[in-house]
Amino acid sequence: MNNIFIIGVGLIGGSFALDIKTLYPKSTIFGIDKNDSNLDEAIQLGFIDKKANFDDLGSAEFVILAIPVDATLNILPQVLDQVSDTAIVIDTGSTKEDICLKVKDHPKRRNYLAAHPIAGTEFSGPKAAIQNLYKNKTNIICEVEETAFKLQEKALKLFSDLGMRIRYMNPKAHDKHIAYVSHLSHISSFMLGKTVIDKERNERDIFDMAGSGFASTVRLAKSSPAMWTPIFEQNKTNVIETLDEYISNLIHFKRLMENDDFEAVFNEMVKTNHIKEILNGIQ
Amino acid sequence: MNNIFIIGVGLIGGSFALDIKTLYPKSTIFGIDKNDSNLDEAIQLGFIDKKANFDDLGSAEFVILAIPVDATLNILPQVLDQVSDTAIVIDTGSTKEDICLKVKDHPKRRNYLAAHPIAGTEFSGPKAAIQNLYKNKTNIICEVEETAFKLQEKALKLFSDLGMRIRYMNPKAHDKHIAYVSHLSHISSFMLGKTVIDKERNERDIFDMAGSGFASTVRLAKSSPAMWTPIFEQNKTNVIETLDEYISNLIHFKRLMENDDFEAVFNEMVKTNHIKEILNGIQ
Repeated sequence: MNNIFIIGVGLIGGSFALDIKTLYPKSTIFGIDKNDSNLDEAIQLGFIDKKANFDDLGSAEFVILAIPVDATLNILPQVLDQVSDTAIVIDTGSTKEDICLKVKDHPKRRNYLAAHPIAGTEFSGPKAAIQNLYKNKTNIICEVEETAFKLQEKALKLFSDLGMRIRYMNPKAHDKHIAYVSHLSHISSFMLGKTVIDKERNERDIFDMAGSGFASTVRLAKSSPAMWTPIFEQNKTNVIETLDEYISNLIHFKRLMENDDFEAVFNEMVKTNHIKEILNGIQ
Repeated sequence: MNNIFIIGVGLIGGSFALDIKTLYPKSTIFGIDKNDSNLDEAIQLGFIDKKANFDDLGSAEFVILAIPVDATLNILPQVLDQVSDTAIVIDTGSTKEDICLKVKDHPKRRNYLAAHPIAGTEFSGPKAAIQNLYKNKTNIICEVEETAFKLQEKALKLFSDLGMRIRYMNPKAHDKHIAYVSHLSHISSFMLGKTVIDKERNERDIFDMAGSGFASTVRLAKSSPAMWTPIFEQNKTNVIETLDEYISNLIHFKRLMENDDFEAVFNEMVKTNHIKEILNGIQ
Protein backbone atom coordinates (compact mmCIF):
# COMPACT_ATOMS: atom_id res chain seq x y z
CA MET A 1 0.00 0.00 0.00
CA ASN A 2 1.24 3.46 -0.80
CA ASN A 3 -0.95 6.45 -0.01
CA ILE A 4 -3.09 5.92 3.03
CA PHE A 5 -5.35 8.69 4.25
CA ILE A 6 -6.61 8.75 7.82
CA ILE A 7 -9.50 11.15 8.40
CA GLY A 8 -9.65 11.84 12.13
CA VAL A 9 -6.32 11.18 13.83
CA GLY A 10 -7.59 10.29 17.32
CA LEU A 11 -7.73 6.98 19.21
CA ILE A 12 -9.24 4.92 16.36
CA GLY A 13 -7.54 6.53 13.34
CA GLY A 14 -4.23 6.94 15.14
CA SER A 15 -4.19 3.29 16.24
CA PHE A 16 -4.77 2.23 12.61
CA ALA A 17 -1.91 4.51 11.54
CA LEU A 18 0.47 3.13 14.17
CA ASP A 19 -0.01 -0.48 13.06
CA ILE A 20 0.01 0.40 9.35
CA LYS A 21 3.37 2.12 9.77
CA THR A 22 4.74 -1.07 11.29
CA LEU A 23 3.14 -3.39 8.73
CA TYR A 24 3.90 -1.33 5.64
CA PRO A 25 6.94 0.82 6.44
CA LYS A 26 7.15 2.11 2.86
CA SER A 27 3.65 3.58 2.81
CA THR A 28 2.94 7.27 3.26
CA ILE A 29 0.23 8.10 5.79
CA PHE A 30 -1.63 11.34 5.23
CA GLY A 31 -3.72 12.86 7.99
CA ILE A 32 -6.85 14.96 7.64
CA ASP A 33 -8.42 16.46 10.75
CA LYS A 34 -10.64 19.48 11.31
CA ASN A 35 -8.47 20.27 14.30
CA ASP A 36 -5.04 21.28 13.02
CA SER A 37 -3.38 20.84 16.41
CA ASN A 38 -4.41 17.15 16.36
CA LEU A 39 -2.45 16.80 13.10
CA ASP A 40 0.59 18.49 14.60
CA GLU A 41 0.37 16.14 17.57
CA ALA A 42 -0.03 13.07 15.33
CA ILE A 43 3.01 14.08 13.26
CA GLN A 44 4.99 14.64 16.42
CA LEU A 45 3.91 11.24 17.73
CA GLY A 46 5.20 9.84 14.46
CA PHE A 47 2.17 8.01 13.08
CA ILE A 48 1.16 10.61 10.46
CA ASP A 49 3.67 11.54 7.77
CA LYS A 50 1.95 14.51 6.15
CA LYS A 51 -0.98 16.84 6.60
CA ALA A 52 -3.50 16.71 3.78
CA ASN A 53 -6.91 18.00 2.82
CA PHE A 54 -9.88 16.78 0.80
CA ASP A 55 -8.41 17.97 -2.52
CA ASP A 56 -5.54 15.52 -2.06
CA LEU A 57 -7.82 12.47 -1.86
CA GLY A 58 -7.48 11.75 -5.60
CA SER A 59 -4.11 10.13 -4.90
CA ALA A 60 -5.43 7.93 -2.06
CA GLU A 61 -5.22 4.16 -2.24
CA PHE A 62 -6.84 3.52 1.12
CA VAL A 63 -8.99 5.95 3.15
CA ILE A 64 -10.01 5.32 6.76
CA LEU A 65 -12.67 7.54 8.31
CA ALA A 66 -12.38 7.60 12.09
CA ILE A 67 -14.58 10.52 13.10
CA PRO A 68 -17.86 10.82 15.03
CA VAL A 69 -20.76 9.14 13.22
CA ASP A 70 -22.60 12.41 12.52
CA ALA A 71 -19.51 13.78 10.78
CA THR A 72 -19.19 10.53 8.82
CA LEU A 73 -22.71 11.04 7.43
CA ASN A 74 -21.60 14.41 5.99
CA ILE A 75 -18.08 13.58 4.99
CA LEU A 76 -18.24 10.08 3.51
CA PRO A 77 -20.17 11.22 0.37
CA GLN A 78 -17.63 14.02 -0.14
CA VAL A 79 -14.75 11.59 0.22
CA LEU A 80 -16.31 9.22 -2.31
CA ASP A 81 -16.73 12.18 -4.70
CA GLN A 82 -12.99 12.81 -4.52
CA VAL A 83 -11.36 9.39 -4.62
CA SER A 84 -10.25 7.49 -7.71
CA ASP A 85 -11.99 4.35 -8.97
CA THR A 86 -9.34 2.13 -7.42
CA ALA A 87 -9.45 3.56 -3.91
CA ILE A 88 -11.06 1.75 -0.98
CA VAL A 89 -12.77 3.86 1.66
CA ILE A 90 -13.80 2.40 5.03
CA ASP A 91 -15.50 3.96 8.00
CA THR A 92 -15.16 2.70 11.57
CA GLY A 93 -18.34 3.98 13.20
CA SER A 94 -20.47 2.34 15.87
CA THR A 95 -23.71 2.72 13.84
CA LYS A 96 -24.15 1.31 10.37
CA GLU A 97 -27.75 1.71 9.19
CA ASP A 98 -27.85 5.48 8.56
CA ILE A 99 -24.47 5.59 6.89
CA CYS A 100 -25.20 2.68 4.53
CA LEU A 101 -28.50 4.34 3.61
CA LYS A 102 -26.79 7.67 3.03
CA VAL A 103 -24.40 6.35 0.35
CA LYS A 104 -26.77 3.69 -1.03
CA ASP A 105 -27.07 5.43 -4.40
CA HIS A 106 -23.71 7.13 -4.49
CA PRO A 107 -21.99 6.48 -7.86
CA LYS A 108 -18.90 5.31 -5.96
CA ARG A 109 -20.79 3.07 -3.50
CA ARG A 110 -18.61 0.14 -4.61
CA ASN A 111 -15.51 1.96 -3.34
CA TYR A 112 -16.88 1.95 0.22
CA LEU A 113 -16.78 -0.82 2.82
CA ALA A 114 -18.88 -0.35 5.98
CA ALA A 115 -16.82 -1.52 8.95
CA HIS A 116 -17.04 -1.43 12.73
CA PRO A 117 -13.91 -2.55 14.52
CA ILE A 118 -14.98 -3.45 18.08
CA ALA A 119 -11.98 -1.94 19.73
CA GLY A 120 -11.17 1.15 21.71
CA THR A 121 -10.47 2.50 25.13
CA GLU A 122 -12.21 5.18 27.17
CA PHE A 123 -9.63 7.75 26.04
CA SER A 124 -9.59 9.95 22.94
CA GLY A 125 -7.33 12.15 20.82
CA PRO A 126 -3.99 11.40 19.09
CA LYS A 127 -2.24 10.60 22.39
CA ALA A 128 -4.80 7.85 23.02
CA ALA A 129 -3.64 5.92 19.93
CA ILE A 130 -1.98 2.63 20.79
CA GLN A 131 -0.22 -0.14 18.92
CA ASN A 132 -2.02 -3.48 18.45
CA LEU A 133 -5.40 -2.05 19.45
CA TYR A 134 -7.06 -4.21 16.79
CA LYS A 135 -5.22 -7.45 17.44
CA ASN A 136 -7.65 -10.33 18.12
CA LYS A 137 -10.61 -7.94 17.99
CA THR A 138 -13.81 -8.41 16.03
CA ASN A 139 -14.47 -6.28 12.95
CA ILE A 140 -18.07 -6.23 11.78
CA ILE A 141 -18.50 -5.71 8.05
CA CYS A 142 -21.89 -4.67 6.73
CA GLU A 143 -23.27 -5.04 3.18
CA VAL A 144 -20.02 -6.59 1.96
CA GLU A 145 -21.70 -7.47 -1.33
CA GLU A 146 -22.06 -3.76 -2.14
CA THR A 147 -18.28 -3.30 -2.27
CA ALA A 148 -16.22 -4.07 -5.38
CA PHE A 149 -14.61 -7.48 -5.00
CA LYS A 150 -11.02 -6.33 -5.45
CA LEU A 151 -11.49 -3.55 -2.94
CA GLN A 152 -13.09 -5.92 -0.39
CA GLU A 153 -10.00 -8.03 -0.78
CA LYS A 154 -7.68 -5.10 -0.15
CA ALA A 155 -9.53 -4.07 3.02
CA LEU A 156 -9.74 -7.64 4.31
CA LYS A 157 -6.01 -8.06 3.75
CA LEU A 158 -5.37 -5.07 6.01
CA PHE A 159 -7.77 -6.33 8.69
CA SER A 160 -6.13 -9.73 8.56
CA ASP A 161 -2.64 -8.17 8.84
CA LEU A 162 -3.90 -6.25 11.87
CA GLY A 163 -4.99 -9.55 13.45
CA MET A 164 -8.75 -8.93 13.38
CA ARG A 165 -11.48 -11.54 13.02
CA ILE A 166 -14.28 -10.66 10.63
CA ARG A 167 -18.03 -11.02 11.14
CA TYR A 168 -20.54 -10.19 8.40
CA MET A 169 -23.88 -8.68 9.33
CA ASN A 170 -26.58 -6.51 7.84
CA PRO A 171 -26.68 -2.89 9.09
CA LYS A 172 -30.08 -3.26 10.80
CA ALA A 173 -28.98 -6.31 12.80
CA HIS A 174 -25.66 -4.65 13.62
CA ASP A 175 -27.32 -1.56 15.07
CA LYS A 176 -29.87 -3.57 17.04
CA HIS A 177 -27.38 -5.93 18.69
CA ILE A 178 -24.61 -3.41 19.22
CA ALA A 179 -27.12 -1.33 21.21
CA TYR A 180 -27.21 -4.19 23.74
CA VAL A 181 -23.55 -5.14 23.92
CA SER A 182 -22.02 -1.68 23.62
CA HIS A 183 -24.27 1.38 23.62
CA LEU A 184 -26.27 0.39 26.73
CA SER A 185 -23.05 -0.25 28.69
CA HIS A 186 -21.97 3.31 28.04
CA ILE A 187 -25.23 4.77 29.31
CA SER A 188 -25.29 2.50 32.38
CA SER A 189 -21.77 3.62 33.16
CA PHE A 190 -22.40 7.34 32.60
CA MET A 191 -25.53 7.26 34.75
CA LEU A 192 -23.77 5.29 37.49
CA GLY A 193 -21.06 7.95 37.53
CA LYS A 194 -23.66 10.70 37.60
CA THR A 195 -25.60 9.09 40.47
CA VAL A 196 -22.52 8.78 42.64
CA ILE A 197 -21.03 12.18 41.77
CA ASP A 198 -24.36 13.94 42.43
CA LYS A 199 -24.68 12.27 45.81
CA GLU A 200 -21.12 12.64 46.95
CA ARG A 201 -20.45 16.07 45.43
CA ASN A 202 -19.55 17.58 48.81
CA GLU A 203 -17.84 14.56 50.23
CA ARG A 204 -14.90 13.92 47.98
CA ASP A 205 -13.23 11.80 50.66
CA ILE A 206 -15.90 9.25 49.93
CA PHE A 207 -14.16 8.26 46.73
CA ASP A 208 -11.40 6.84 48.91
CA MET A 209 -13.98 4.15 49.62
CA ALA A 210 -14.32 3.24 45.97
CA GLY A 211 -12.56 0.11 44.89
CA SER A 212 -11.66 -1.52 41.62
CA GLY A 213 -15.26 -2.72 41.16
CA PHE A 214 -16.56 0.84 41.00
CA ALA A 215 -13.67 1.86 38.75
CA SER A 216 -14.51 -0.96 36.35
CA THR A 217 -18.23 -0.20 36.12
CA VAL A 218 -17.76 3.56 35.60
CA ARG A 219 -14.74 3.31 33.32
CA LEU A 220 -16.82 4.01 30.21
CA ALA A 221 -18.09 7.25 31.76
CA LYS A 222 -14.72 8.72 30.78
CA SER A 223 -15.65 8.28 27.10
CA SER A 224 -15.93 11.18 24.67
CA PRO A 225 -19.40 12.85 24.64
CA ALA A 226 -18.66 14.20 21.13
CA MET A 227 -18.28 10.66 19.88
CA TRP A 228 -21.15 9.11 21.81
CA THR A 229 -23.94 11.68 21.41
CA PRO A 230 -24.33 11.12 17.64
CA ILE A 231 -24.18 7.35 18.16
CA PHE A 232 -27.13 7.53 20.54
CA GLU A 233 -28.90 9.86 18.12
CA GLN A 234 -28.43 7.61 15.10
CA ASN A 235 -29.33 4.49 17.04
CA LYS A 236 -32.09 6.12 19.06
CA THR A 237 -34.83 3.50 18.59
CA ASN A 238 -32.64 0.54 19.51
CA VAL A 239 -30.95 2.30 22.39
CA ILE A 240 -34.27 3.36 23.90
CA GLU A 241 -35.45 -0.26 23.67
CA THR A 242 -32.39 -1.45 25.61
CA LEU A 243 -32.86 1.31 28.18
CA ASP A 244 -36.49 0.30 28.68
CA GLU A 245 -35.49 -3.28 29.37
CA TYR A 246 -32.58 -2.30 31.61
CA ILE A 247 -34.72 0.10 33.65
CA SER A 248 -37.48 -2.47 34.06
CA ASN A 249 -34.95 -5.08 35.25
CA LEU A 250 -33.62 -2.58 37.81
CA ILE A 251 -37.15 -1.74 38.99
CA HIS A 252 -37.91 -5.45 39.33
CA PHE A 253 -34.75 -5.97 41.40
CA LYS A 254 -35.69 -3.05 43.63
CA ARG A 255 -39.23 -4.47 44.10
CA LEU A 256 -37.79 -7.80 45.18
CA MET A 257 -35.69 -5.98 47.78
CA GLU A 258 -38.63 -3.89 48.97
CA ASN A 259 -40.67 -7.09 49.38
CA ASP A 260 -37.81 -8.71 51.31
CA ASP A 261 -37.74 -11.48 48.73
CA PHE A 262 -34.03 -12.10 49.03
CA GLU A 263 -34.37 -15.64 47.75
CA ALA A 264 -35.48 -14.13 44.44
CA VAL A 265 -32.66 -11.54 44.64
CA PHE A 266 -30.23 -14.43 45.04
CA ASN A 267 -31.75 -16.27 42.07
CA GLU A 268 -31.56 -13.19 39.85
CA MET A 269 -27.83 -13.06 40.47
CA VAL A 270 -27.31 -16.81 40.02
CA LYS A 271 -29.04 -16.68 36.64
CA THR A 272 -26.76 -13.87 35.49
CA ASN A 273 -23.58 -15.46 36.85
CA HIS A 274 -23.08 -17.49 33.69
CA ILE A 275 -21.96 -14.25 32.06
CA LYS A 276 -18.62 -15.72 33.20
CA GLU A 277 -18.63 -18.26 30.40
CA ILE A 278 -20.00 -15.75 27.91
CA LEU A 279 -17.25 -13.28 28.68
CA ASN A 280 -14.49 -15.84 28.37
CA GLY A 281 -12.36 -14.76 25.53
CA ILE A 282 -13.60 -11.18 25.23
CA GLN A 283 -10.83 -9.58 27.19
CA MET B 1 2.12 -13.21 65.69
CA ASN B 2 1.66 -16.86 66.44
CA ASN B 3 -1.77 -18.41 66.16
CA ILE B 4 -3.85 -16.82 63.45
CA PHE B 5 -7.33 -18.12 62.72
CA ILE B 6 -9.01 -17.44 59.40
CA ILE B 7 -12.74 -18.16 59.38
CA GLY B 8 -13.79 -18.57 55.75
CA VAL B 9 -10.86 -19.50 53.52
CA GLY B 10 -12.07 -17.98 50.25
CA LEU B 11 -10.92 -14.94 48.25
CA ILE B 12 -10.79 -12.52 51.21
CA GLY B 13 -9.63 -14.85 53.99
CA GLY B 14 -7.24 -16.71 51.71
CA SER B 15 -5.63 -13.50 50.47
CA PHE B 16 -5.05 -12.42 54.09
CA ALA B 17 -3.50 -15.82 54.81
CA LEU B 18 -1.18 -15.65 51.78
CA ASP B 19 0.27 -12.29 52.80
CA ILE B 20 0.47 -13.20 56.49
CA LYS B 21 2.49 -16.31 55.64
CA THR B 22 4.96 -14.10 53.78
CA LEU B 23 5.08 -11.39 56.46
CA TYR B 24 5.23 -13.68 59.49
CA PRO B 25 6.71 -16.97 58.31
CA LYS B 26 6.85 -18.35 61.85
CA SER B 27 3.13 -17.98 62.52
CA THR B 28 0.68 -20.86 62.32
CA ILE B 29 -2.45 -20.21 60.30
CA PHE B 30 -5.53 -22.17 61.27
CA GLY B 31 -8.49 -22.42 58.95
CA ILE B 32 -12.15 -22.77 59.88
CA ASP B 33 -14.71 -23.25 57.13
CA LYS B 34 -18.16 -24.80 57.05
CA ASN B 35 -17.12 -26.43 53.79
CA ASP B 36 -14.44 -29.01 54.55
CA SER B 37 -13.32 -29.27 50.95
CA ASN B 38 -12.45 -25.56 50.99
CA LEU B 39 -10.09 -26.28 53.87
CA ASP B 40 -8.50 -29.19 52.00
CA GLU B 41 -8.02 -26.92 49.01
CA ALA B 42 -6.56 -24.11 51.14
CA ILE B 43 -4.10 -26.51 52.77
CA GLN B 44 -3.13 -27.86 49.36
CA LEU B 45 -2.65 -24.29 48.08
CA GLY B 46 -0.37 -23.79 51.05
CA PHE B 47 -1.90 -20.80 52.81
CA ILE B 48 -3.59 -22.67 55.65
CA ASP B 49 -1.45 -24.80 57.95
CA LYS B 50 -4.08 -26.65 59.95
CA LYS B 51 -7.81 -27.26 60.07
CA ALA B 52 -9.46 -26.04 63.23
CA ASN B 53 -12.88 -25.59 64.79
CA PHE B 54 -14.54 -23.20 67.20
CA ASP B 55 -13.31 -25.06 70.29
CA ASP B 56 -9.74 -24.24 69.28
CA LEU B 57 -10.29 -20.48 69.32
CA GLY B 58 -9.07 -20.14 72.92
CA SER B 59 -5.50 -20.28 71.60
CA ALA B 60 -6.03 -17.63 68.94
CA GLU B 61 -4.01 -14.42 68.91
CA PHE B 62 -5.66 -12.99 65.80
CA VAL B 63 -8.99 -14.02 64.26
CA ILE B 64 -10.15 -12.85 60.83
CA LEU B 65 -13.74 -13.46 59.80
CA ALA B 66 -14.12 -13.53 56.04
CA ILE B 67 -17.57 -15.00 55.50
CA PRO B 68 -20.85 -13.61 54.12
CA VAL B 69 -22.27 -10.84 56.29
CA ASP B 70 -25.32 -12.86 57.40
CA ALA B 71 -23.02 -15.60 58.69
CA THR B 72 -20.89 -12.96 60.45
CA LEU B 73 -23.94 -11.79 62.39
CA ASN B 74 -24.38 -15.31 63.79
CA ILE B 75 -20.79 -16.31 64.19
CA LEU B 76 -19.01 -13.22 65.51
CA PRO B 77 -20.72 -13.41 68.97
CA GLN B 78 -19.80 -17.10 69.20
CA VAL B 79 -16.20 -16.32 68.29
CA LEU B 80 -16.02 -13.59 70.92
CA ASP B 81 -17.42 -16.07 73.46
CA GLN B 82 -14.49 -18.41 72.75
CA VAL B 83 -11.44 -16.18 72.44
CA SER B 84 -9.10 -15.15 75.23
CA ASP B 85 -8.91 -11.62 76.63
CA THR B 86 -5.79 -10.88 74.57
CA ALA B 87 -7.14 -11.96 71.18
CA ILE B 88 -8.12 -9.49 68.47
CA VAL B 89 -11.04 -10.43 66.23
CA ILE B 90 -11.76 -8.55 63.01
CA ASP B 91 -14.43 -8.97 60.40
CA THR B 92 -14.10 -7.92 56.76
CA GLY B 93 -17.73 -7.47 55.70
CA SER B 94 -19.20 -4.89 53.34
CA THR B 95 -21.85 -3.77 55.87
CA LYS B 96 -21.02 -2.44 59.29
CA GLU B 97 -24.14 -1.13 61.03
CA ASP B 98 -25.94 -4.41 61.83
CA ILE B 99 -22.80 -6.18 62.96
CA CYS B 100 -21.68 -3.35 65.28
CA LEU B 101 -25.16 -3.27 66.75
CA LYS B 102 -25.19 -7.04 67.21
CA VAL B 103 -22.07 -7.11 69.43
CA LYS B 104 -22.62 -3.70 71.05
CA ASP B 105 -23.19 -5.20 74.50
CA HIS B 106 -21.07 -8.30 74.14
CA PRO B 107 -18.75 -8.68 77.18
CA LYS B 108 -15.83 -9.05 74.77
CA ARG B 109 -16.77 -6.10 72.53
CA ARG B 110 -13.32 -4.62 73.14
CA ASN B 111 -11.72 -7.64 71.50
CA TYR B 112 -13.46 -6.85 68.21
CA LEU B 113 -12.46 -4.37 65.49
CA ALA B 114 -14.99 -3.66 62.74
CA ALA B 115 -13.11 -3.50 59.42
CA HIS B 116 -13.94 -3.34 55.74
CA PRO B 117 -10.99 -3.79 53.44
CA ILE B 118 -12.04 -2.35 50.06
CA ALA B 119 -10.42 -5.06 48.03
CA GLY B 120 -11.49 -8.07 46.07
CA THR B 121 -12.06 -9.48 42.65
CA GLU B 122 -15.16 -10.92 41.01
CA PHE B 123 -13.99 -14.44 41.84
CA SER B 124 -14.53 -16.51 44.97
CA GLY B 125 -13.29 -19.60 46.81
CA PRO B 126 -9.78 -20.61 47.98
CA LYS B 127 -8.38 -20.62 44.41
CA ALA B 128 -9.39 -16.96 44.06
CA ALA B 129 -6.99 -15.94 46.86
CA ILE B 130 -4.11 -13.80 45.61
CA GLN B 131 -0.98 -12.28 47.07
CA ASN B 132 -0.87 -8.51 47.67
CA LEU B 133 -4.64 -8.11 47.26
CA TYR B 134 -4.61 -5.53 50.05
CA LYS B 135 -1.59 -3.52 48.99
CA ASN B 136 -2.42 0.19 48.57
CA LYS B 137 -6.10 -0.51 49.27
CA THR B 138 -8.33 1.36 51.68
CA ASN B 139 -9.44 -0.30 54.90
CA ILE B 140 -12.38 1.31 56.63
CA ILE B 141 -12.43 0.93 60.40
CA CYS B 142 -15.65 1.61 62.28
CA GLU B 143 -16.10 2.44 65.98
CA VAL B 144 -12.37 2.21 66.61
CA GLU B 145 -12.88 3.67 70.07
CA GLU B 146 -14.84 0.55 71.09
CA THR B 147 -11.77 -1.67 70.64
CA ALA B 148 -9.12 -2.08 73.35
CA PHE B 149 -6.17 0.17 72.60
CA LYS B 150 -3.54 -2.58 72.53
CA LEU B 151 -5.66 -4.71 70.24
CA GLN B 152 -6.31 -1.78 67.88
CA GLU B 153 -2.58 -1.41 67.69
CA LYS B 154 -2.07 -5.06 66.83
CA ALA B 155 -4.65 -4.97 64.04
CA LEU B 156 -3.34 -1.69 62.63
CA LYS B 157 0.17 -3.12 62.61
CA LEU B 158 -1.05 -5.97 60.40
CA PHE B 159 -2.94 -3.60 58.07
CA SER B 160 0.11 -1.42 57.80
CA ASP B 161 2.33 -4.44 57.04
CA LEU B 162 -0.14 -5.42 54.33
CA GLY B 163 0.25 -1.94 52.79
CA MET B 164 -3.28 -0.69 53.48
CA ARG B 165 -4.34 2.89 54.16
CA ILE B 166 -6.81 3.37 56.98
CA ARG B 167 -9.97 5.48 57.06
CA TYR B 168 -12.11 5.85 60.18
CA MET B 169 -15.85 6.16 59.85
CA ASN B 170 -18.99 5.48 61.83
CA PRO B 171 -21.00 2.39 60.78
CA LYS B 172 -24.03 4.41 59.61
CA ALA B 173 -21.94 6.63 57.33
CA HIS B 174 -20.00 3.62 56.08
CA ASP B 175 -23.13 1.76 55.04
CA LYS B 176 -24.67 4.82 53.41
CA HIS B 177 -21.66 5.76 51.29
CA ILE B 178 -20.56 2.24 50.44
CA ALA B 179 -24.03 1.69 48.95
CA TYR B 180 -23.13 4.33 46.35
CA VAL B 181 -19.55 3.43 45.56
CA SER B 182 -19.83 -0.34 45.78
CA HIS B 183 -23.23 -1.96 46.25
CA LEU B 184 -24.98 -0.02 43.46
CA SER B 185 -22.19 -0.92 40.98
CA HIS B 186 -22.86 -4.58 41.61
CA ILE B 187 -26.58 -4.26 40.91
CA SER B 188 -26.02 -2.11 37.81
CA SER B 189 -23.64 -4.74 36.53
CA PHE B 190 -25.86 -7.74 37.33
CA MET B 191 -28.87 -6.09 35.69
CA LEU B 192 -26.84 -5.09 32.63
CA GLY B 193 -25.75 -8.71 32.27
CA LYS B 194 -29.34 -9.87 32.72
CA THR B 195 -30.70 -7.43 30.12
CA VAL B 196 -28.20 -8.54 27.49
CA ILE B 197 -28.42 -12.27 28.25
CA ASP B 198 -32.24 -12.19 28.18
CA LYS B 199 -32.25 -10.44 24.83
CA GLU B 200 -29.51 -12.40 23.16
CA ARG B 201 -30.33 -15.80 24.67
CA ASN B 202 -30.81 -17.40 21.27
CA GLU B 203 -28.11 -15.52 19.49
CA ARG B 204 -24.92 -16.45 21.21
CA ASP B 205 -22.89 -15.27 18.22
CA ILE B 206 -23.85 -11.77 19.28
CA PHE B 207 -21.38 -11.90 22.12
CA ASP B 208 -18.66 -11.87 19.48
CA MET B 209 -19.70 -8.24 19.07
CA ALA B 210 -19.01 -7.45 22.70
CA GLY B 211 -15.79 -5.57 23.36
CA SER B 212 -13.74 -4.72 26.40
CA GLY B 213 -16.23 -1.98 27.35
CA PHE B 214 -19.01 -4.49 27.87
CA ALA B 215 -16.65 -6.85 29.68
CA SER B 216 -15.66 -4.06 32.06
CA THR B 217 -19.21 -2.97 32.90
CA VAL B 218 -20.51 -6.51 33.49
CA ARG B 219 -17.43 -7.82 35.27
CA LEU B 220 -19.08 -7.57 38.69
CA ALA B 221 -21.97 -9.75 37.48
CA LYS B 222 -19.60 -12.68 37.99
CA SER B 223 -19.62 -12.00 41.75
CA SER B 224 -20.87 -14.50 44.31
CA PRO B 225 -24.66 -14.32 44.94
CA ALA B 226 -24.13 -15.97 48.35
CA MET B 227 -21.89 -13.10 49.38
CA TRP B 228 -23.95 -10.29 47.86
CA THR B 229 -27.51 -11.25 48.80
CA PRO B 230 -27.01 -10.72 52.56
CA ILE B 231 -25.16 -7.44 51.87
CA PHE B 232 -28.17 -6.11 49.98
CA GLU B 233 -30.42 -7.41 52.75
CA GLN B 234 -28.47 -5.77 55.57
CA ASN B 235 -28.05 -2.53 53.65
CA LYS B 236 -31.55 -2.57 52.17
CA THR B 237 -32.59 1.02 52.93
CA ASN B 238 -29.43 2.62 51.58
CA VAL B 239 -29.25 0.38 48.53
CA ILE B 240 -32.88 1.09 47.61
CA GLU B 241 -32.13 4.81 47.86
CA THR B 242 -29.21 4.48 45.44
CA LEU B 243 -31.34 2.38 43.09
CA ASP B 244 -34.08 5.01 43.12
CA GLU B 245 -31.61 7.70 42.13
CA TYR B 246 -29.92 5.55 39.51
CA ILE B 247 -33.23 4.54 37.93
CA SER B 248 -34.45 8.14 37.85
CA ASN B 249 -31.20 9.25 36.17
CA LEU B 250 -31.65 6.54 33.54
CA ILE B 251 -35.29 7.52 32.96
CA HIS B 252 -34.21 11.16 32.60
CA PHE B 253 -31.57 10.21 30.04
CA LYS B 254 -34.12 8.17 28.09
CA ARG B 255 -36.58 11.11 28.13
CA LEU B 256 -33.90 13.40 26.72
CA MET B 257 -33.36 10.92 23.89
CA GLU B 258 -37.09 10.53 23.27
CA ASN B 259 -37.39 14.32 23.05
CA ASP B 260 -34.45 14.47 20.64
CA ASP B 261 -32.66 16.77 23.07
CA PHE B 262 -29.20 15.56 22.16
CA GLU B 263 -27.59 18.75 23.33
CA ALA B 264 -28.77 17.82 26.83
CA VAL B 265 -27.60 14.22 26.29
CA PHE B 266 -24.18 15.63 25.41
CA ASN B 267 -24.15 17.83 28.50
CA GLU B 268 -25.13 14.94 30.78
CA MET B 269 -22.04 13.09 29.60
CA VAL B 270 -19.74 16.12 29.82
CA LYS B 271 -20.79 16.68 33.42
CA THR B 272 -19.97 13.09 34.31
CA ASN B 273 -16.67 13.01 32.41
CA HIS B 274 -14.79 14.45 35.37
CA ILE B 275 -15.09 11.00 36.92
CA LYS B 276 -11.67 10.73 35.22
CA GLU B 277 -10.04 12.85 37.88
CA ILE B 278 -12.03 11.22 40.64
CA LEU B 279 -10.94 7.76 39.57
CA ASN B 280 -7.30 8.67 39.31
CA GLY B 281 -5.49 6.61 41.82
CA ILE B 282 -8.22 4.03 42.46
CA GLN B 283 -6.92 1.39 40.12
